[in-house]
Amino acid sequence: MIKVKVVGASGYGGIGIIELLLRHPQAEITTLVALESVGKPISEIWPHLTGFCDKVVHSPEDAEALEPVDVVFMATPDRVGMKSAGAELERGAKVIDYSGDFRFNSASEYAEYAQRIGKNPVHDSPELLPLSVYGAPELHRREITPERRIVGNPGCFAISCILGLAPAAAAKLFRPDSVICDCKSGISGAGKKLSSSFHYPNRYEMMNAYKLAGHQHVCEIERELRLLNGEDVKVTFTAQVVPVCRGIMSCLYADLVSPVSEEDLVSVYREFYKDSVFVRVLPSTAPVGSMHVRGTNYTNIVVSVDRRVNRMRIVSYIDNLMKGQAGSALQNMNLLFGLPETTGLEHPSFFP
Amino acid sequence: MIKVKVVGASGYGGIGIIELLLRHPQAEITTLVALESVGKPISEIWPHLTGFCDKVVHSPEDAEALEPVDVVFMATPDRVGMKSAGAELERGAKVIDYSGDFRFNSASEYAEYAQRIGKNPVHDSPELLPLSVYGAPELHRREITPERRIVGNPGCFAISCILGLAPAAAAKLFRPDSVICDCKSGISGAGKKLSSSFHYPNRYEMMNAYKLAGHQHVCEIERELRLLNGEDVKVTFTAQVVPVCRGIMSCLYADLVSPVSEEDLVSVYREFYKDSVFVRVLPSTAPVGSMHVRGTNYTNIVVSVDRRVNRMRIVSYIDNLMKGQAGSALQNMNLLFGLPETTGLEHPSFFP
Amino acid sequence: MIKVKVVGASGYGGIGIIELLLRHPQAEITTLVALESVGKPISEIWPHLTGFCDKVVHSPEDAEALEPVDVVFMATPDRVGMKSAGAELERGAKVIDYSGDFRFNSASEYAEYAQRIGKNPVHDSPELLPLSVYGAPELHRREITPERRIVGNPGCFAISCILGLAPAAAAKLFRPDSVICDCKSGISGAGKKLSSSFHYPNRYEMMNAYKLAGHQHVCEIERELRLLNGEDVKVTFTAQVVPVCRGIMSCLYADLVSPVSEEDLVSVYREFYKDSVFVRVLPSTAPVGSMHVRGTNYTNIVVSVDRRVNRMRIVSYIDNLMKGQAGSALQNMNLLFGLPETTGLEHPSFFP
Amino acid sequence: MIKVKVVGASGYGGIGIIELLLRHPQAEITTLVALESVGKPISEIWPHLTGFCDKVVHSPEDAEALEPVDVVFMATPDRVGMKSAGAELERGAKVIDYSGDFRFNSASEYAEYAQRIGKNPVHDSPELLPLSVYGAPELHRREITPERRIVGNPGCFAISCILGLAPAAAAKLFRPDSVICDCKSGISGAGKKLSSSFHYPNRYEMMNAYKLAGHQHVCEIERELRLLNGEDVKVTFTAQVVPVCRGIMSCLYADLVSPVSEEDLVSVYREFYKDSVFVRVLPSTAPVGSMHVRGTNYTNIVVSVDRRVNRMRIVSYIDNLMKGQAGSALQNMNLLFGLPETTGLEHPSFFP
Repeated sequence: MIKVKVVGASGYGGIGIIELLLRHPQAEITTLVALESVGKPISEIWPHLTGFCDKVVHSPEDAEALEPVDVVFMATPDRVGMKSAGAELERGAKVIDYSGDFRFNSASEYAEYAQRIGKNPVHDSPELLPLSVYGAPELHRREITPERRIVGNPGCFAISCILGLAPAAAAKLFRPDSVICDCKSGISGAGKKLSSSFHYPNRYEMMNAYKLAGHQHVCEIERELRLLNGEDVKVTFTAQVVPVCRGIMSCLYADLVSPVSEEDLVSVYREFYKDSVFVRVLPSTAPVGSMHVRGTNYTNIVVSVDRRVNRMRIVSYIDNLMKGQAGSALQNMNLLFGLPETTGLEHPSFFP
Repeated sequence: MIKVKVVGASGYGGIGIIELLLRHPQAEITTLVALESVGKPISEIWPHLTGFCDKVVHSPEDAEALEPVDVVFMATPDRVGMKSAGAELERGAKVIDYSGDFRFNSASEYAEYAQRIGKNPVHDSPELLPLSVYGAPELHRREITPERRIVGNPGCFAISCILGLAPAAAAKLFRPDSVICDCKSGISGAGKKLSSSFHYPNRYEMMNAYKLAGHQHVCEIERELRLLNGEDVKVTFTAQVVPVCRGIMSCLYADLVSPVSEEDLVSVYREFYKDSVFVRVLPSTAPVGSMHVRGTNYTNIVVSVDRRVNRMRIVSYIDNLMKGQAGSALQNMNLLFGLPETTGLEHPSFFP
Repeated sequence: MIKVKVVGASGYGGIGIIELLLRHPQAEITTLVALESVGKPISEIWPHLTGFCDKVVHSPEDAEALEPVDVVFMATPDRVGMKSAGAELERGAKVIDYSGDFRFNSASEYAEYAQRIGKNPVHDSPELLPLSVYGAPELHRREITPERRIVGNPGCFAISCILGLAPAAAAKLFRPDSVICDCKSGISGAGKKLSSSFHYPNRYEMMNAYKLAGHQHVCEIERELRLLNGEDVKVTFTAQVVPVCRGIMSCLYADLVSPVSEEDLVSVYREFYKDSVFVRVLPSTAPVGSMHVRGTNYTNIVVSVDRRVNRMRIVSYIDNLMKGQAGSALQNMNLLFGLPETTGLEHPSFFP
Repeated sequence: MIKVKVVGASGYGGIGIIELLLRHPQAEITTLVALESVGKPISEIWPHLTGFCDKVVHSPEDAEALEPVDVVFMATPDRVGMKSAGAELERGAKVIDYSGDFRFNSASEYAEYAQRIGKNPVHDSPELLPLSVYGAPELHRREITPERRIVGNPGCFAISCILGLAPAAAAKLFRPDSVICDCKSGISGAGKKLSSSFHYPNRYEMMNAYKLAGHQHVCEIERELRLLNGEDVKVTFTAQVVPVCRGIMSCLYADLVSPVSEEDLVSVYREFYKDSVFVRVLPSTAPVGSMHVRGTNYTNIVVSVDRRVNRMRIVSYIDNLMKGQAGSALQNMNLLFGLPETTGLEHPSFFP
């Protein structure tokens, strides 16, 4: 059994991976760590786990928090993972980090990311960055191998955009400066942290765009598209919140270099994802939406072309807490331990 | 493998049992039957099932619909199961019926039920009624055995009330004419049938009580309480709908025959349910709600006493589509086939 | 024009009365006071007021906060109004207080209330209590006159229960120890204060009961019913929260002393409320719910009788922020200034 | 008093205008017409109108439906207004039509519209088209005069996009083939007609894009932009539905012909709308959303520029049932009768 520690266990990202690990046939949760609710069973904080996971939450300083495990999920904000990842590696663990700390592979790339979002550009463990890989299995599964020690799990908006644009980027179908990502997220994407913006009465009928000056996920989108396309891609990105709990719907627009039919575009996408179980490519008439991926690791990608102006339009649906977070993280764990990518992830959710 | 047919496959009750069966290690869906969407894969109707269950929906008249199976789930309204159950038994199947058709064990009991709700009092297959058992495993698990052929699955409101009152009824703690069941349901309880009352804009801010003249679930509540208590119990029942999708919260009131402390009442309840994995008994201070049982077969029962007036008050939480429908149905199937009650049902749901 | 000061202007109770006053033909908002957002225009905090009310919020210590007005709405928690009401009276203002501070008319009554909810039983201005009246115009409009100086505005749950039970209490139709109030509130009832319980993702599918040990509104319900009935009435009260923003649905049960038909009970209620424009009495078949009073000062009261057990059941619907708070407050202001009760309150809301 | 008839009175568009007219100081509802609920008081269908508007709904064939009025609101689908508008004009009424029937001013323009959306291209009353004006007061108020007889009220998505793009189009700031309208609507936009897509359980967690092949509102957007810009504008338009009741959030993108700062763009917009009370122009940091215009006739327009790629991005918020329907209709009525545009429309809504 793979021994697992979850740091940041009491947040949505933490319980997301706990829920998944409880179903995983070859993994076992041995340690839960968080800053809040220390000393309490996780099932006291999240009563739906009662009887399934009643382990006590430890402080990062507790001796129990330091016992060796095989893998650590850092369900923590920026600048937490970079401080403890080195020690975890020394204790023999692999690290899967949810934040921006390990999504870039050099100190300079990290600095650029941090500067764009107005944060400290100096990474605390620059020597670890070359060890890391961006945790998008659909694009990097050959690099997410048992030899790998660190994975930078993708941002939720980012993965929805990247998967939606990757096949067209790789085929150089669009103009690199024409990409627009219009992204709507459910509220769980902001985590369990209280905010007047997410107070039920202020939100139940509220749609709004935010961070128009720039969102932290743009850098990784542009990096991945550049890797695929070969040219610099500049993305206009609009983050929006709407009153659903789970789900991201990203509408992705780009001007086609030359005319392509919807049928051909669907084919390009299907070919690109032919080995990716968790991606479903659909034509523009498919009656799907965010609820059809809720609770699962799937991405539904609807492909269309506006022929009048020769523009492609992709609608990409994910569950922000699954493919956008814990689901991808578990998929990455499977690859890190040589297991089939889908282990513990292939179940239907419930509807409605 | 237990071969399973689901009749009424395209409704919420149908997809609920399909979702559960897909995870069951010893059951296999062989046949889907419905009146709508005949000839289409079920995953075209409910896209979240894509890749998990792509079986075609058959009309009840199709030859495929008549092939022998081990068990049939009748996820159908009143008066459907009573017409086909006999033929299913002859073909060697067991029948688990979701409607009121097999919740009563004699033609006269059925007639009383039907009359109270203003329906045809003549059962079409009265000879089958003695073969049936009421599918509340917590109360009748000794009767839900491999010898049993038919189960009348409980009503969603009913099971929430019955489980909430059973221990006190059995211990004769309350006055039989003092019981009030104030029940709030999520909207999925009304199924997928369209209604202006459940049209999103008419409902998102709407709470209302309905059927004040009498609800179809009262009969089975009163019958079960009488079986436990020995005396006739008359229940004032108020059905309400609030804008959640899944969940029932039933507040149950009864005047105590003599004073009981909350602690003692909790003990009575815990003792009663000591063999019932899916019931959690909690004190009045437990911070739980309907979301903590969502997607699961659990019942959370919060016990309290209003000492000033010597009245007990129980708050019972279930997921109306799970413990209130498909979850109980699968639990019953397990018992009918000699499996552990919990097979295929012991997993945490997701939160939030 | 009546000059108005709103204290606690930045909370839901504050903006509720601001919205109403903006439509009132004879009142004028002169001063806004709050502890938060001091120095900002109220329309910066609540952008929907832009162009309608752009007044700056003052601290209670600011000189502007002390300028004389005709009436002060104290949209503040317990123990705030009792501290400043005396000074407001001296400056010539009348006071309408939203909290429990002036709902009771003697120090001993207040002490009993405070003790039941575990708070300091000593009122800071006991000499003012005899000057106050309970602000339920339907029951006390003859006492809410231009001579009156202080009004204790009712609690939201309380007014829904009191209006639902008053006619039967006055007619001595029920047993005083048999009353059960099963009350469900929308989330705005808890105000704008952040809480993990009201964080959107934790709440959108959540129903729960809370404060089972006792709710602060029970005292005023029992007091009003005793005044009407002549006997001590003891109420079992269950507060519940469901995911709507606005609305209270209270199901009220009581054992009838002798049989009454629904028709007769409706007549008793209609007669009792014949001068009360804001109360609509409806038979048990009326298809109404909380959304039909949303945004208005109306109470919809649905009357029914469970004949089998000789029990009355009333379902009372209000908007917790209107009849349950700002609407009643404005109705009280009208009476305090000799205006028709309905001034500024008679408009339909919008639907859906 | 202006005598008003509402045709399609029982739909959301009908009750929207009824609610507004009840507050209008110079208008009086004399006649309600609908195909459904004929013979019933409108307050029986929509109980929130009880006491405010209890008029009986007439069939279009009833004699009462034909009595002369001053203005008729046709809250009806395409091809209804075109059949009866002529007769209304002959009876002396003006006509404000909600559908696409009178949004175009020639038979050929109408035919193009109808063909693009796959409908019958032959208008039934082509002679009336030149009498009509597009009911966007912010752009056409000089044409919506007392001499005018017919107004084609704008589509809800359309008006949100047109108002969001008009100032930039008029100033020729963007490339005409670069416009993208990414529009999200609340569910009330689809009216009261039942649909499985808007059944509460299927929708509460569902976001989805639809009609990717083309939406009926694109024609009027392109027409208005061409009128302002002088050149043909081609729009890529994505309609999306999210689980709110009321509100449209449109993100509008276009490539700037030459660099413009956000400050300058805000100035262009403010100058353009300096006489338009119902438009608020805001910088990119304004913390506003759809709830801040809910229940009102306002449009909140947030202006931003993505300097890296020289692209403008406008976020336009309206209430689809107000500015997107009944609010604009009343604003148009005011202009048709020489009243101030704002009569009956200047009130704040409620929040939350």
